[in-house]
Amino acid sequence: MGIKGNVISVFSLGGLNEIGKNMYVIEYGNDIIIIDCGNKFPDESLLGIDLIIPDFSYIIENKDRVRGLIVTHGHEDHIGGVPFFLKEVNVPVYATRFTLGLIELKLREHRFLRESELIEINSDSVVQIGEMNINFFKVNHSIPDCLGIVFNTPEGTIVHTGDFKFDWTPANNERPEIHKMAEFGNKGLLLLLSESTNAERTGYTPSEQMVGENLDQIFIRARRKVIVSTFASNVSRIQQVVNAAEKTERKIALLGRSMVNVVGVAMERGYLTIPNGMLIEAREINGLPPEMVTILCTGSQGESMAALSRLSTGNFRDVEILSEDTVIIAAGPIPGNERNVSSIVDNLYKLGAHVIYGSGSSSGIHVSGHGYQEDLRLMLTLMKPKYFIPIHGEYRMLHHHRMLAESVGVEKGHTFILRNGDVVDIENAIARSTRNIPSGNTYVDGVDIGKMEFVLRDRKQISEEGMLIIIIPMNKQEGKLLSEPEIISRGFVDQNFSELRKGMKQMTIETINELHEANRYSWNVIKKQLKRSVAQYVKEGTRKEPMIVPILMDI
Amino acid sequence: MGIKGNVISVFSLGGLNEIGKNMYVIEYGNDIIIIDCGNKFPDESLLGIDLIIPDFSYIIENKDRVRGLIVTHGHEDHIGGVPFFLKEVNVPVYATRFTLGLIELKLREHRFLRESELIEINSDSVVQIGEMNINFFKVNHSIPDCLGIVFNTPEGTIVHTGDFKFDWTPANNERPEIHKMAEFGNKGLLLLLSESTNAERTGYTPSEQMVGENLDQIFIRARRKVIVSTFASNVSRIQQVVNAAEKTERKIALLGRSMVNVVGVAMERGYLTIPNGMLIEAREINGLPPEMVTILCTGSQGESMAALSRLSTGNFRDVEILSEDTVIIAAGPIPGNERNVSSIVDNLYKLGAHVIYGSGSSSGIHVSGHGYQEDLRLMLTLMKPKYFIPIHGEYRMLHHHRMLAESVGVEKGHTFILRNGDVVDIENAIARSTRNIPSGNTYVDGVDIGKMEFVLRDRKQISEEGMLIIIIPMNKQEGKLLSEPEIISRGFVDQNFSELRKGMKQMTIETINELHEANRYSWNVIKKQLKRSVAQYVKEGTRKEPMIVPILMDI
Repeated sequence: MGIKGNVISVFSLGGLNEIGKNMYVIEYGNDIIIIDCGNKFPDESLLGIDLIIPDFSYIIENKDRVRGLIVTHGHEDHIGGVPFFLKEVNVPVYATRFTLGLIELKLREHRFLRESELIEINSDSVVQIGEMNINFFKVNHSIPDCLGIVFNTPEGTIVHTGDFKFDWTPANNERPEIHKMAEFGNKGLLLLLSESTNAERTGYTPSEQMVGENLDQIFIRARRKVIVSTFASNVSRIQQVVNAAEKTERKIALLGRSMVNVVGVAMERGYLTIPNGMLIEAREINGLPPEMVTILCTGSQGESMAALSRLSTGNFRDVEILSEDTVIIAAGPIPGNERNVSSIVDNLYKLGAHVIYGSGSSSGIHVSGHGYQEDLRLMLTLMKPKYFIPIHGEYRMLHHHRMLAESVGVEKGHTFILRNGDVVDIENAIARSTRNIPSGNTYVDGVDIGKMEFVLRDRKQISEEGMLIIIIPMNKQEGKLLSEPEIISRGFVDQNFSELRKGMKQMTIETINELHEANRYSWNVIKKQLKRSVAQYVKEGTRKEPMIVPILMDI
Repeated sequence: MGIKGNVISVFSLGGLNEIGKNMYVIEYGNDIIIIDCGNKFPDESLLGIDLIIPDFSYIIENKDRVRGLIVTHGHEDHIGGVPFFLKEVNVPVYATRFTLGLIELKLREHRFLRESELIEINSDSVVQIGEMNINFFKVNHSIPDCLGIVFNTPEGTIVHTGDFKFDWTPANNERPEIHKMAEFGNKGLLLLLSESTNAERTGYTPSEQMVGENLDQIFIRARRKVIVSTFASNVSRIQQVVNAAEKTERKIALLGRSMVNVVGVAMERGYLTIPNGMLIEAREINGLPPEMVTILCTGSQGESMAALSRLSTGNFRDVEILSEDTVIIAAGPIPGNERNVSSIVDNLYKLGAHVIYGSGSSSGIHVSGHGYQEDLRLMLTLMKPKYFIPIHGEYRMLHHHRMLAESVGVEKGHTFILRNGDVVDIENAIARSTRNIPSGNTYVDGVDIGKMEFVLRDRKQISEEGMLIIIIPMNKQEGKLLSEPEIISRGFVDQNFSELRKGMKQMTIETINELHEANRYSWNVIKKQLKRSVAQYVKEGTRKEPMIVPILMDI
């Protein structure tokens, strides 16, 4: 490939025009550094797909130059692709202690932990990679131990914010390192990459402290069990639940695999303090008076197999939600999950529980981990970048973030709204975007990893229209039917099918006879013609367009 | 069946624990009256299904006693099932002039208009059916000509509110008939059925007037084309767009079939006034200066085939959205549609348009047509019912509506939260709910109408896991393979398939040979055993569980 020595190239392999699979790349001379490697969850149109990860092909092609992967924090959309990535390009992974704990859980599942080189850093670390000197600063978010990254290069300085908000009263007392940010900004910044998730929301993000105060009130009022569902990784939120439980003399049970795993990591590494004797097993719940019980569980996004969903339908071993229990869903629904969460709320009400939900400030039990417009303006103001790339968001969010940047002095034309794969090259302190490299979605389907175009196309057609298999007993040499064709359907109309089947058989027989008379009896011709004539016949009768699979039976 | 003379029975065949397919039934002696007959749109789990309508089986069984269908207003979730219903139970349909216009459009599409008996009523009409004397009152909603219904029976009075809000300054000046409501309430109400859509929202619904004022401001500021997307049936909203266009000397083009159809009905029947010469054709747009153009289009819910979606991707003949055009999405996204709407907003920003969207009061271009908590409390206070059934909503909405009822004096235990099919029987002014009748979802899939259980189960499995067809050339008498089996896949893994196929063939051959040796070679046994052994082999290798279809090739 050969990039000139004094050009810095910056691009994304995931995270632009989408929420998820964040992966940003900085190239300088012979060195490539990756920032984050996340996954994304498929929407309903991606039938059967388990996960989406970035297209690594450019990185694999240039693997000799890749020096490391720096991870800003431990959310799935920033670490979910790591095992897949390391299996292809096994470079050192730099991350904070808590983030590494979550990455380790993942690598252990993939049986790739031993093969991996994990390097613990903190916000005071300095990492030297080639000519790049890398610093860090603490930011607040909805998971502990989050970093912003500062890349000092001979050509200028680049800052990547990670996911952040400014919280002056965070639950864990880890305040954002605003003095450091001010200092980096003051030295003059060539380029800022800043996250855009809440660029459409006015004002400042409320502090996590607000949630703590409301949780305390709810716990004091509750007369029976309190069940709290939140992201397992939101350790501050969990600490506040623990605190509220302690004040009201309740025990805590953890339900759901990721809750158990992540709380384990958080306790072990010192990010979460639970008083001795407070944790109980699920099966101990029924032995305690309900006013002594708190349950912390997964499933705040309405995931059908997670603990909260199973509790709401009475399908959790040993644990029941009963009338007058209090359920708190302390998380906002990610777009697309609203209906699943609502249906759980409905079921909880049917059980007679008090339900506290909703991401609005009215409910008071959730605040966003992403900065609103004034947080974003503050970051831009601190950093005073010459150039700006809004990252981590859908197009409308990037668009609003650009307007925010211009409102605090970033020059018009100095903001780049990119697509994944679009490269910004900076040479002699002038940034341009004129080229792009391959990017896109890679799907994980069971153990299969790839683009899956045909597989998905077939699944979509069959899922909406059904499938017809036409078995044709035929002498291939002569193109003559040996007996009646047979028709098998799956996922296709179930009423009046016998009538329709008769017609399809007739249509099949006629088509083959006509082709035989016209001396056109290669199997390819027959197959094509059959698909066309039967499809048309079926569509007229049923308004459906099933997949048609003719099968030659020639023995 | 035989219901005793002095019992009133009330139940729902759709609309409880769901938003959609509203259908309520009142039985008194020998008379059955239906209120509304709506449809519901399928979520993504209902693969390939076009529509959901209520299960009519109870009504069909008792069709001799059905006297009529009264329709409160013309929204799809209240009229969408009408053609399907009338084809089964052809009774007179009572509705207002505008509602009938929309029902006629539907019946014409279904070629059932001539067969139908449509009876126009207004809020002053009196309908006598058996011993029931039926009155009406005007309510506000997001479509013209909406009714609440009053059933006067010798046993007492029942009110069904229809969908409503209280708007003292509606755009069409048709104020709610609050004096009538007060009068009915004052005479003493046995039972109120009131809609619950916004029972979770505090305060009063804002007035439609607010939208008009904001639209005017946006039109005045716009320097190029203004494109407004809203529900075609929201005639008041459309009138306000027309008014804003008139004030700013713009022409109006209508895009989208339902926009053209419904605006046609509204103009023809006097619900919408568009000045002469103001309406233009889509192909005339390009001949006008952009500041003289307004476009009214369908697609506010992000529907992929509707006008707004096609405009946003540059796929609309003769019409383009260009930089500096203004696009107003004057409708809130129905839960489940958020992502599709967001993706259109993204595309519009990419075209350089100014986009005004969002259902919050902050955007000011949409207000709900459903009453908030104080509207609901006002209705309950006016009506002073002895018994109350919250209708039209998910469980959590019904639950909150019950709490509102109790807060304004409905006695505890006098509110019935029902499921579809649960019957409330009222005898000697005492209401009880102890029985239920069949209800549920009926699916429309092309021309097929039914429960579709197997079809949907098959579609779901194939859509997520794919399908394997195993063709087995076998002598059925002897249970012996004649040659190698063949395997065809659809929607299944595409990588390393040849390796996998080899293994599956081997597995098939072994299975059949083993069964042959064990003298167990009926085709049913072979089929069952093959499905099991191949499924297990495939799952181990791929983590997928495709549908497996063994086909015997025995000639």
